Amino acid sequence: MSISADSPVGVFDSGLGGLTVVREVVTELPDERVVYLGDTARVPYGTRSASTVVRYARRCAEHLTACGVKYLVVACNTVSAVALDMLRVELDIPVLGVIEPGARAGLRATQSGRIGVIATSGTVQSGAYERAVRAGDSRAEVFVQAAPLLVPLVEEGWVEGEVPALAVQRYLEPLVHQGIDALILGCTHYPVLRKCIRTQLDVMGADQVAIVDSAAAAAKELAASLSDRGLRATEPLDNKLRIMVTDTPGTFQLAASRFLGSGAEELCVEGVDL
Amino acid sequence: MSISADSPVGVFDSGLGGLTVVREVVTELPDERVVYLGDTARVPYGTRSASTVVRYARRCAEHLTACGVKYLVVACNTVSAVALDMLRVELDIPVLGVIEPGARAGLRATQSGRIGVIATSGTVQSGAYERAVRAGDSRAEVFVQAAPLLVPLVEEGWVEGEVPALAVQRYLEPLVHQGIDALILGCTHYPVLRKCIRTQLDVMGADQVAIVDSAAAAAKELAASLSDRGLRATEPLDNKLRIMVTDTPGTFQLAASRFLGSGAEELCVEGVDL
Repeated sequence: MSISADSPVGVFDSGLGGLTVVREVVTELPDERVVYLGDTARVPYGTRSASTVVRYARRCAEHLTACGVKYLVVACNTVSAVALDMLRVELDIPVLGVIEPGARAGLRATQSGRIGVIATSGTVQSGAYERAVRAGDSRAEVFVQAAPLLVPLVEEGWVEGEVPALAVQRYLEPLVHQGIDALILGCTHYPVLRKCIRTQLDVMGADQVAIVDSAAAAAKELAASLSDRGLRATEPLDNKLRIMVTDTPGTFQLAASRFLGSGAEELCVEGVDL
Repeated sequence: MSISADSPVGVFDSGLGGLTVVREVVTELPDERVVYLGDTARVPYGTRSASTVVRYARRCAEHLTACGVKYLVVACNTVSAVALDMLRVELDIPVLGVIEPGARAGLRATQSGRIGVIATSGTVQSGAYERAVRAGDSRAEVFVQAAPLLVPLVEEGWVEGEVPALAVQRYLEPLVHQGIDALILGCTHYPVLRKCIRTQLDVMGADQVAIVDSAAAAAKELAASLSDRGLRATEPLDNKLRIMVTDTPGTFQLAASRFLGSGAEELCVEGVDL
């Protein structure tokens, strides 16, 4: 399919969490069309092996390129951690993950050079945030904490109250103990818990810690990269957001509204079988 | 493949949780060989649509029958809820789920006829426990509560302390409020939280509530059914437990030990691509 500046941007994630990235992209780039693919039939990727994630990522990327996207944003931290190189080799379009932008934003936010990261087990095991931060500043120190319960908490809608507070506290304690002054949210679900995370940091006396959202950082880098490559949409287009999911779209609206914010009730979603 | 009384029993689940069923089966039937298939590449099923669960269940069942099993135990509550009829029609071997045995055990345990069930969202939405209990006693009242956070809590190993206690309490409160006197654990992961569930029931003043484990109930019904059909193993055999997983077997040992109890470190596990 031929690609032009007016082709859509493709965004994919293992589930619906990547809609937090879509939210930032449409805020940063209101004239761009976006095609989103959530691999909801195989979510979560975070607990799967690297070879399985690579296999799933290839299928999703193939589907989006067949839809004629001009740029691929990998909203999934786990895929960004283990499959970005493969996707960059295999695809003819530029590919942006969320880890490198998040790491660069972390470096801009830190003064002490001590950066904390919370992420899924898969992302933690990959060591991708450490590599990305050190690629930007070899003296920076990175402290990574797997926080696997935060995804199901967000999906259950328990984003306020005692249970998320206790879980967040338990995951942040070792990082605060290391004296970090920047905390990267290394999973697309975590921005939904941002208020809870801020409160718990403050409760622990770590109010100087800046929270860095990889999704927002990726959207900013996407905007710059599209401009550099002459790929910005030439005129505002209708039908800005197209959403596809691999599981049946049944309970999509409620879940999507948590990640995308308002407006999810007006969305149309297509089921695809990959 | 020809089947005899000395063929193995097949057990399958979406992940490793079904090993709580295997544990009960090998306790109840120490002479039987068991082949276990955990669809770890696509776990969890509990949040997926019925049509997706049916598709996955068919593939897993086909793989186990190709391994020559004489009997299929569906350890997954979600599959038992939505795909058991399909499997019974399509397969030439007997098929046992965990919901009907669990419901029957619940009816034996209750005196008031008020039975509570905790389960995944998929199982709850299916209404399968209500149907199974009412099939046994049309006057019984069933109160069902989705408890989606309990699976990730078990997988994270948080089975003691404040977070699981608060989550369990929150899920059990509406059931205790309904005056139940029997609680069916409607997910293979929940037996791992049994102690926490017992404590929280007692704390809530519901010490008269009996906890009913669907896994143990299914193992007892399997033993009776094998005897009825003349399918009990004729002699003790070596290599009693064979385990297959669809994701790479990497972190299997630690996770398996939570469900299977002791001995997991000696297990051999095979990866299969479905």
